[in-house]
Amino acid sequence: MSDAATQPDSYPVTDRSRVKRLHERGRYDHAAVHAILDAAMVAHIAYVIDGQPFCTPTAFWREGTHLYWHGSAASRMLRAQKPGLPVCLTVTHLDSLVLARCGFNHSVDYRSAMCFGTAHIIEDLEAKARALDAMIDRFYPGRNAELRPSTAQEIKATMVVGMEIEEASAKIRSKGVGDEEEDYALPIYAARIPVTQVIGAPEPCPRLVDGVAFPEGLKGFTAGRRLDEVMVESHRTTFGVE
Amino acid sequence: MSDAATQPDSYPVTDRSRVKRLHERGRYDHAAVHAILDAAMVAHIAYVIDGQPFCTPTAFWREGTHLYWHGSAASRMLRAQKPGLPVCLTVTHLDSLVLARCGFNHSVDYRSAMCFGTAHIIEDLEAKARALDAMIDRFYPGRNAELRPSTAQEIKATMVVGMEIEEASAKIRSKGVGDEEEDYALPIYAARIPVTQVIGAPEPCPRLVDGVAFPEGLKGFTAGRRLDEVMVESHRTTFGVE
Repeated sequence: MSDAATQPDSYPVTDRSRVKRLHERGRYDHAAVHAILDAAMVAHIAYVIDGQPFCTPTAFWREGTHLYWHGSAASRMLRAQKPGLPVCLTVTHLDSLVLARCGFNHSVDYRSAMCFGTAHIIEDLEAKARALDAMIDRFYPGRNAELRPSTAQEIKATMVVGMEIEEASAKIRSKGVGDEEEDYALPIYAARIPVTQVIGAPEPCPRLVDGVAFPEGLKGFTAGRRLDEVMVESHRTTFGVE
Repeated sequence: MSDAATQPDSYPVTDRSRVKRLHERGRYDHAAVHAILDAAMVAHIAYVIDGQPFCTPTAFWREGTHLYWHGSAASRMLRAQKPGLPVCLTVTHLDSLVLARCGFNHSVDYRSAMCFGTAHIIEDLEAKARALDAMIDRFYPGRNAELRPSTAQEIKATMVVGMEIEEASAKIRSKGVGDEEEDYALPIYAARIPVTQVIGAPEPCPRLVDGVAFPEGLKGFTAGRRLDEVMVESHRTTFGVE
């Protein structure tokens, strides 16, 4: 355990969560980890069935230090998680390609967060319905109130999984080109090429009823905006700043 | 085993790789799987150490039906993979947010590929040097010839991991809004909001030697282009169309 383990607003640092490679890039405070999580809609979840690892992409969201995701009740992953399965949920934002003057220093700038915990299924129907409403509003503020309400059958057919973050680490690289000192004099092109995930212009459903307007709650979803910034905004609008 | 298992240009369909949820979205042919892999720079890799799953993002590349990735020789993941570790490597492209008329039908359009295999470390120095050169050129065609050559120390400090794809599946959703028939008459906004990962204008290193031009091999990397399209182009330029 390092000192970080005793910080009140940090996740404990353990052998499982400690950033070992380039450890100066590692952070364990809630603010750093949550900022990376809240900027994303999709995470990759690693879990094990009979010794075989699986890596599944899924939409997820955070409330406090708890993570949620969902899927069909028929999903293999979620079935396996029923008894309480160890899980590693990872979010990665690719921020730039880094072209250096030698192969070794080629890199990317990125922000990633790894969260460890034990997944549990939310069985209680009311808790499940509340979580599914929260999921919609987390991504699209205020939207749930405008939708046709979920049926009991729809709620039953959906499995919601929750996981308290037991340990987590954030890893960030943002320095662009970093070459060996003697290599800067070489006549070789080097650059940082930014990469962003952006939203395009919304394409209304062709069967939209006449006169239905673009909802006020979606005003952040405008063409050309960065998805990570919109996701953080939506999270704050719905859950407030924690 | 399904019929797909007997197709020459398909990966075998097994209990491990079969797409169980919404199985009509599943494909196992090389063309479908490779198209998703080659459009990406970053994958998420699931592996198990002492029963604990980890999910690590990493740059990777494909040659034929073999995948490669690399990292520091000190990396926990790569150390654990030394004896030949079962791995699931997953690539996901988020293509759109899908806002339906009820919560249940909210979704995303996406392309994902899951690849199963056993990771092995490439120990031979020449094979390792060749793989590292291929990695640079896979992402940035022709670039390796322009770089300061790797030193023996740099090659030694890098671990390269390879994995034959034993089984793989692709899962694609691209239908946009899909509501219950009776819900289309409701006065509720519904839309597909496209999401793309785009390249920004290259930012040359501030210490670039005067007169060094933007390399011909990077001509595909222009501001506003989709990263997935550039990645496919680079792969084809370097390895040809397979």
